[in-house]
Amino acid sequence: MTVLALAMGNCGNNPKKSNSEDSKVLTENTVVYPSDVIPFMDKWKILMGDGTRSEDLVNYEKKDFFYVANDGNTNWVVYKTPNAGVTSRTSSNTRTELGEKAHWIPETGGKLTGTLKVKHVSTTGDASVSSSYSVVVGQIHSDEGHENEPLKIFYKKFPGHTKGAVFWNYEINTEGDNAGRWDYSSAVWGYDFSDVGTGETTYPEEPEDGIALNEEFSYEVNVYKGIMYLTFTSEGHETIKFTKSLVKSDFSKKTEIPQQILNTYALRGRDGVERDTAYAGEINYFKQGAYNQANGKSTKSEIYDGDIAKQYVNGSYAEVWFKEATVGAGTIPAEE
Amino acid sequence: MTVLALAMGNCGNNPKKSNSEDSKVLTENTVVYPSDVIPFMDKWKILMGDGTRSEDLVNYEKKDFFYVANDGNTNWVVYKTPNAGVTSRTSSNTRTELGEKAHWIPETGGKLTGTLKVKHVSTTGDASVSSSYSVVVGQIHSDEGHENEPLKIFYKKFPGHTKGAVFWNYEINTEGDNAGRWDYSSAVWGYDFSDVGTGETTYPEEPEDGIALNEEFSYEVNVYKGIMYLTFTSEGHETIKFTKSLVKSDFSKKTEIPQQILNTYALRGRDGVERDTAYAGEINYFKQGAYNQANGKSTKSEIYDGDIAKQYVNGSYAEVWFKEATVGAGTIPAEE
Repeated sequence: MTVLALAMGNCGNNPKKSNSEDSKVLTENTVVYPSDVIPFMDKWKILMGDGTRSEDLVNYEKKDFFYVANDGNTNWVVYKTPNAGVTSRTSSNTRTELGEKAHWIPETGGKLTGTLKVKHVSTTGDASVSSSYSVVVGQIHSDEGHENEPLKIFYKKFPGHTKGAVFWNYEINTEGDNAGRWDYSSAVWGYDFSDVGTGETTYPEEPEDGIALNEEFSYEVNVYKGIMYLTFTSEGHETIKFTKSLVKSDFSKKTEIPQQILNTYALRGRDGVERDTAYAGEINYFKQGAYNQANGKSTKSEIYDGDIAKQYVNGSYAEVWFKEATVGAGTIPAEE
Repeated sequence: MTVLALAMGNCGNNPKKSNSEDSKVLTENTVVYPSDVIPFMDKWKILMGDGTRSEDLVNYEKKDFFYVANDGNTNWVVYKTPNAGVTSRTSSNTRTELGEKAHWIPETGGKLTGTLKVKHVSTTGDASVSSSYSVVVGQIHSDEGHENEPLKIFYKKFPGHTKGAVFWNYEINTEGDNAGRWDYSSAVWGYDFSDVGTGETTYPEEPEDGIALNEEFSYEVNVYKGIMYLTFTSEGHETIKFTKSLVKSDFSKKTEIPQQILNTYALRGRDGVERDTAYAGEINYFKQGAYNQANGKSTKSEIYDGDIAKQYVNGSYAEVWFKEATVGAGTIPAEE
């Protein structure tokens, strides 16, 4: 109302003054910040691919990493990060990714939503390594114990393919030593994390129902009273839902280790089981943005000696655009 | 920007159309909702003094309980509730009070702020009963175990006094049976909960540094890593701060029961101790508004057979106005 009243005031008897005031306003508002596009930025801090951190994201941007782009119709928040840069304490993958300031336990829950399109994933890597050519676009991350990840939402596309896949991983909250940890992966559209090439340059078949670069999709992560409800939607694709307890393990016995894990991690000796109460009572938080899974070590992605400009020119980066996103309290799940 | 651009468009060559559009907008916006004044309403549900509940408070109001009033300068959100009405499951006091949708544990924390003025408290009651003539304007409430209250912020004013008091109560998370529970009260400005009259109509001295009806004050409740940091400010009054652990009890041994409690609750057999870890790991949430502490039973306040209109006309109600408030993640406390 105030804004409208002021502007209406300019319709009065002094058009000259009105015009000059209007241009001043326009000039001052030339920069559109990520917080103008998605107003929840006050609830996050950020770590970017060159190691820059910020805890005050209102009216904040950083060239080449975190800024607003317009595709002709819509403003989007861009998260961009190279294959090699500065990483966090617990990872060898770079990220330009929001980290939620509020923390929570599965019992109190929380909800994260996002509508996004992936613009780019690394074009180099080792096709036989799961994390090649992929980017994580949303997470639940534990802040206690092993600091494992109950949820990572991936987008991945093999070189030469038009369509990529969306899948999500659940990492067990390992009983005892975390060396036995593993991720159980579920396909949303296309393949999952365990579907890899038989060699460095041998790719699985392109998924018919996959998601292309520049194709919009949405996710909702609703954690309510210890249960995680996932919903994935995209125009022209089937809506896919999952339900997973975060407080009662499905994998607490050796006999419960899924075949997918026996075929992959277990061959490398990673065959742990999960504590019976999974992530119950453990402090977690959401992440959202671009967490590049292509690095120069495990995935053999090109990194150009860590030169970020060169990586950006040569396709050694991940870039994800979000147009809408929310974070807040978990909600009673809708009846099916 | 969009709003401004549209309004600027109305400054053009068609004043007739412009005017009619403007009046349409103005008409549509005649009702100012609480969510227009304090934009955090999407994070709350409400229970009102007549038992009405709502979980969708955006563009919502309810006459006589939850609405916007203007004092000539500023829009305020009004929370009004009679001495007798419909109460919640766990209380015999009525409330028109927000309840936070998000829940949290002390270790993950949270932050609630408010700037308010109390317009009215019950003018009848028993001066020898602590809760007479008082209203709770902010709370932390547990949602587990005993469902006790780590924090209640009170305003109280005895009949005939100009100035009232602001104080806060910490309720122990009782070890074992909750029948032994008690509230430890700390004065902010004026007396505390334990300072009562010697008889039904005998009042303590009016506090010199007290807060009058219609006098603004602010509180900040910041729970960070298990510690509760309280800050109370009011123009012309000393700023008062408190720090209290919510995860390590100060009252876990009989010898630690404060003299205030021995003088009051213990005389009635309520002399419990607190579990050593206090509220650690227990799910809590914030409340804000008017939780009327004057009821017809313990405080002998007039209730006019529960007739709300009669109670409102005859001073048997609490009314609290908030002009600003926030809720969100706990923050690193400022260095002293």
